[in-house]
Amino acid sequence: MYLHGRNVLKEILNINNTVKVKQVIFTNQKNADGQINLLKEACYQRGFKVESASAERLAQLTGEKKHQGVVIEINKFPYHEFEKLREKLTRKNTSIVVLLDRINDPHNLGAIIRTSVAAGVDGILIPEKGSCSITPSVIKVSTGLAFRIPITVVTNISRAIDLLKEDGFWFYAATTDGQPYYRENYSEKSGIVFGSEGRGIRQLVSKKCDFSISIPMEKNVDSLNVAASAAIIIFQMRRKLLSSGDSNGN
Amino acid sequence: MYLHGRNVLKEILNINNTVKVKQVIFTNQKNADGQINLLKEACYQRGFKVESASAERLAQLTGEKKHQGVVIEINKFPYHEFEKLREKLTRKNTSIVVLLDRINDPHNLGAIIRTSVAAGVDGILIPEKGSCSITPSVIKVSTGLAFRIPITVVTNISRAIDLLKEDGFWFYAATTDGQPYYRENYSEKSGIVFGSEGRGIRQLVSKKCDFSISIPMEKNVDSLNVAASAAIIIFQMRRKLLSSGDSNGN
Repeated sequence: MYLHGRNVLKEILNINNTVKVKQVIFTNQKNADGQINLLKEACYQRGFKVESASAERLAQLTGEKKHQGVVIEINKFPYHEFEKLREKLTRKNTSIVVLLDRINDPHNLGAIIRTSVAAGVDGILIPEKGSCSITPSVIKVSTGLAFRIPITVVTNISRAIDLLKEDGFWFYAATTDGQPYYRENYSEKSGIVFGSEGRGIRQLVSKKCDFSISIPMEKNVDSLNVAASAAIIIFQMRRKLLSSGDSNGN
Repeated sequence: MYLHGRNVLKEILNINNTVKVKQVIFTNQKNADGQINLLKEACYQRGFKVESASAERLAQLTGEKKHQGVVIEINKFPYHEFEKLREKLTRKNTSIVVLLDRINDPHNLGAIIRTSVAAGVDGILIPEKGSCSITPSVIKVSTGLAFRIPITVVTNISRAIDLLKEDGFWFYAATTDGQPYYRENYSEKSGIVFGSEGRGIRQLVSKKCDFSISIPMEKNVDSLNVAASAAIIIFQMRRKLLSSGDSNGN
């Protein structure tokens, strides 16, 4: 799997061996800027295999012109096992998990991952079928933050909700006709479900949810972009659940 | 200017003559779905000139493969004059304007426009230089909502802030070290300024702002995507200023 982008490499350099790097390939352009050299140096120090190639070759490897002169080959994206995520969550008093029901647009998926990491979300669940997986584009849009949060693929999303409910979670479905998101007193263990744009959350999934919330907006506007909705709701949940420190202005 | 996308055409069909349509070109593919025919019919009823062309020709006109079989040729994007926007704003007791200082990514600009319309923002100001203008991609990402909100290009953004201050506006700069956005009591006439990712708000612009606000987030995360930040802050402003009806759950 060929990843691209400087922020992605920086993230990989920052994390500890959760991702197996096969090689890092830099542009061999003579006029490459100084940051490339700094990144190269950091790769040597981490013991990564470093190669160089033409910008065209990098574009060919990644299928992406905007590779920023940096391509990282990894084995595969390090998904988390569901049971390991559950174990982690039981050790916390307060936590938020984000469940994405069939988000197909890589830009939206990457944006929601980035937002989730910034908000301190504990894990992201995506269904095995009908969803965009964690592709190089998703990782790029997440600015590499996809490596900082447990992302779990579940075969049966209803079953996953049931199991997390057993662990003390309550589930909130983001819909167009629920209670205003800011009126909700989120449970200390909260799961928030977002559906795809256009199609929303599947009925079998929304039935499993305990509450339905929505974002009040102007009449005659169909809906927000799902990444915008997620930002608004997830940061409200953070504010209610995770951010006791924030109230002091930190 | 060749626009593309079905939501864009639907929006243009919904608005009243603020945009001059030269022609609408549909795909001539035999197996086009029923929605194309409905849109074609609506175009005839509005008296638009309707043409058809191959999918390849549509892609060529727009430089975009995902044109959804619909291309709309318009004269130019109908920007609002600054003085007309000011006039409108003086007739309102409560209003929000969004000022974007050098947003260069069409995806972010389109997403912020869509969010602004959904939140009931009264106008968007972008500087003449250093900013992405309202391109077909921006309009597509906004799902056509760019036509529903006054968008004004200003040559001198500091001067625009001064004039709006004279009209009773207070300005808030979205930064990384201001007071938490949810602690702010926004003025009934509020301007919110977002800067570009990476570079932030220019100093000469931020100096003009009365307050600085930020979104508290996890340590070691640099920043949110600017469209996510805008969604969080703008909907908080809506909640404080515009949404008396929302508190009843509407």
